[in-house]
Amino acid sequence: MTELSKDIMQLLEWLGYFGNDPEGGVTRLLYTKEWLEAQKALEHWMNTEGFDVHFDEVGNLFGGLQGTKYPNETIMTGSHVDTVRNGGLYDGQFGIVAGLLALKHLKETHGQPLRSLQLVSMAEEEGSRFPYAFWGSKNIVGTARREEVENISDFDGIAFVDAMRDCGFHFRNESATIRQDLKAFVEIHIEQGSVLEKEAKSVGVVNNIVGQRRFTVEVTGEANHAGTTPMGYRKDAVQAASAMICDVINRARVHGDPLVATVGKIEVKPNVVNVVPGHALFTLDIRHTEKSMLVQFTEEITTALNQIAKDMNVGLQIDMWMDADPVPMDTRIVEVIEQQCKEIGLNYKLMHSGAGHDSQILAGLTPTAMIFVPSKDGISHNPAEYTDPYDLAEGVKALIGTLYTLAYEE
Amino acid sequence: MTELSKDIMQLLEWLGYFGNDPEGGVTRLLYTKEWLEAQKALEHWMNTEGFDVHFDEVGNLFGGLQGTKYPNETIMTGSHVDTVRNGGLYDGQFGIVAGLLALKHLKETHGQPLRSLQLVSMAEEEGSRFPYAFWGSKNIVGTARREEVENISDFDGIAFVDAMRDCGFHFRNESATIRQDLKAFVEIHIEQGSVLEKEAKSVGVVNNIVGQRRFTVEVTGEANHAGTTPMGYRKDAVQAASAMICDVINRARVHGDPLVATVGKIEVKPNVVNVVPGHALFTLDIRHTEKSMLVQFTEEITTALNQIAKDMNVGLQIDMWMDADPVPMDTRIVEVIEQQCKEIGLNYKLMHSGAGHDSQILAGLTPTAMIFVPSKDGISHNPAEYTDPYDLAEGVKALIGTLYTLAYEE
Repeated sequence: MTELSKDIMQLLEWLGYFGNDPEGGVTRLLYTKEWLEAQKALEHWMNTEGFDVHFDEVGNLFGGLQGTKYPNETIMTGSHVDTVRNGGLYDGQFGIVAGLLALKHLKETHGQPLRSLQLVSMAEEEGSRFPYAFWGSKNIVGTARREEVENISDFDGIAFVDAMRDCGFHFRNESATIRQDLKAFVEIHIEQGSVLEKEAKSVGVVNNIVGQRRFTVEVTGEANHAGTTPMGYRKDAVQAASAMICDVINRARVHGDPLVATVGKIEVKPNVVNVVPGHALFTLDIRHTEKSMLVQFTEEITTALNQIAKDMNVGLQIDMWMDADPVPMDTRIVEVIEQQCKEIGLNYKLMHSGAGHDSQILAGLTPTAMIFVPSKDGISHNPAEYTDPYDLAEGVKALIGTLYTLAYEE
Repeated sequence: MTELSKDIMQLLEWLGYFGNDPEGGVTRLLYTKEWLEAQKALEHWMNTEGFDVHFDEVGNLFGGLQGTKYPNETIMTGSHVDTVRNGGLYDGQFGIVAGLLALKHLKETHGQPLRSLQLVSMAEEEGSRFPYAFWGSKNIVGTARREEVENISDFDGIAFVDAMRDCGFHFRNESATIRQDLKAFVEIHIEQGSVLEKEAKSVGVVNNIVGQRRFTVEVTGEANHAGTTPMGYRKDAVQAASAMICDVINRARVHGDPLVATVGKIEVKPNVVNVVPGHALFTLDIRHTEKSMLVQFTEEITTALNQIAKDMNVGLQIDMWMDADPVPMDTRIVEVIEQQCKEIGLNYKLMHSGAGHDSQILAGLTPTAMIFVPSKDGISHNPAEYTDPYDLAEGVKALIGTLYTLAYEE
């Protein structure tokens, strides 16, 4: 293992100690003791490295190197410090660790940058403790609203506000101006999919984050006795739902990449072996890099499902409860990353992100792009999350080269 | 409403008082206080009518009129006294009430029969309190085994044995000879389906009770991130299960009546909106009046499901955990019932039963047949269970005529 790979692994394990869960993996939820310990430990580390360190009001941690020529232009990197319950060592953490090592390396090798360089350890992205995601990045870009979290609590009934205050943080002043110094954000993250692994690539250069639409589809038939109701008398909600699921997924396959359609959840009522089900509900998650395709596919399946419901004589209710547009990454930064990959000789692939990331929020404020490293077997949000240390180092090299270009070159 | 309809309704409501549930309907589970009160009240009523009354060891209640010429040949009618939780006024009860009124009428009109006539209020059929069904009828025919219930308990942890003993009953002597006097059993019951209602018939003459096979079908794919896993990389257990469900149900429809196939229960793992499901399980309940068709359909769908699993690259496990053969009703008794329907001028239909009944157990010991009356909207096992009092009376007329032929004629 190279020195860089070793350094990365050592830091990942060090950071993963905060929230090390006896039931497996890392559980480091927003505004918990483990979370605060991790942020404080990172603060200490950044101080040791000689970065200019500060927390913002809500607990995002920043550590920077001031620019010698353009101190008011900031190139930022980093990711989120929170994890899901029983998460792995890489999701979020790796972006922070990689940034830490990149800034350290750049400072040691090239001294102070022309533009300010900043590492961020964002407070929250996963939405795992409270029903709110991207709390960290949304506070940076100024779209988080006090009233959105004022009345939410975690599973133990602890109010968001109390948890935040107990950690020593408080709401951002929403009337204050949003920072104007950010000129670029580059986030390195695990892919959380198996595309890089399957194509044997070490690095992904992300040019787009998919848009998502999520639906609940409710099918209403008629509950009947499984023995005494001839097939011709039935309004079988499960039969109709199954036909709909087959139809939607087949249509998605016909359209092909990058469209994905997933039926992740099914609920049947009464859900007993000897009753023809009167009610079936399923969720549908569709994603694509082009908004127009999301709109078109929504129309296509709405028509198709209504036709099936009509043919099968069941009621149908389609409810879209999430509609997030795709977020294209900044073309110039994508080019810089790609150029660096070529110069260093990395085995890379231009790709989109099928998962959501802090970058999609930051992109609303500043030019943004992402670097991916492979996820073994596509696994994430799980103690079994793993990336080969070789690939981790390849990713950090791409990050270092990119940050150098953005912060050290005219 | 005719006098007969009024008498039936009055008795149904009287009997339904025992176990009248504040949450709706009737809850009269085996060996509960309500159950014992109902049996004791029926015992009292039968005594009042001058029947020869006795309980067997396990709590089946019998009340009879001795035959003048063939006292050792018994024609029996009746049904089960237990209900499901929040059951209706008709399921089981009606067979007892109808038998009571039939015997009373026959005795008052024609005096003692040539053959003995007996009413039975069977202890248990539903399997609603303990995981054991047909406890009443299986004790009559001698197939209930002590060891099958010795270690079972209800949801509150009360042992079957304790509940039975607390009601004053105990195990049948399994080495004793089974009664040899039974020459016929005729059970009247609600249809629990909507065939009679849809075809506007008052009475069903049952010529067969369907056989049933029940399966659990387990599909094993691979859980994956809904956003980062292209369609081509997926092993989607829900997509495969949906294709299988469509296939099985379509095949059942192609075969046509009396085949029915029901997927009543689906369980998906992890069952969250943004994960391609790695695991799906569904139950399959198939019924037909011919065993050969159950066997043939089982083979057909086993081949078809395995082909789908192969095509979709998922694992498949098909587990058959119930295999009950069809039970044809006794041809002679079916003819007697049909003849009576014709003579009385009833609006009847020859049909099979898609549900299980005590009659399928009794048929193992003695020639057996059933009479159905309609179920409004096919509803049963529910407080909304309902049969028009007119149809109830038509059913009782068919029963009276049948019992007269069997017990009073040479």
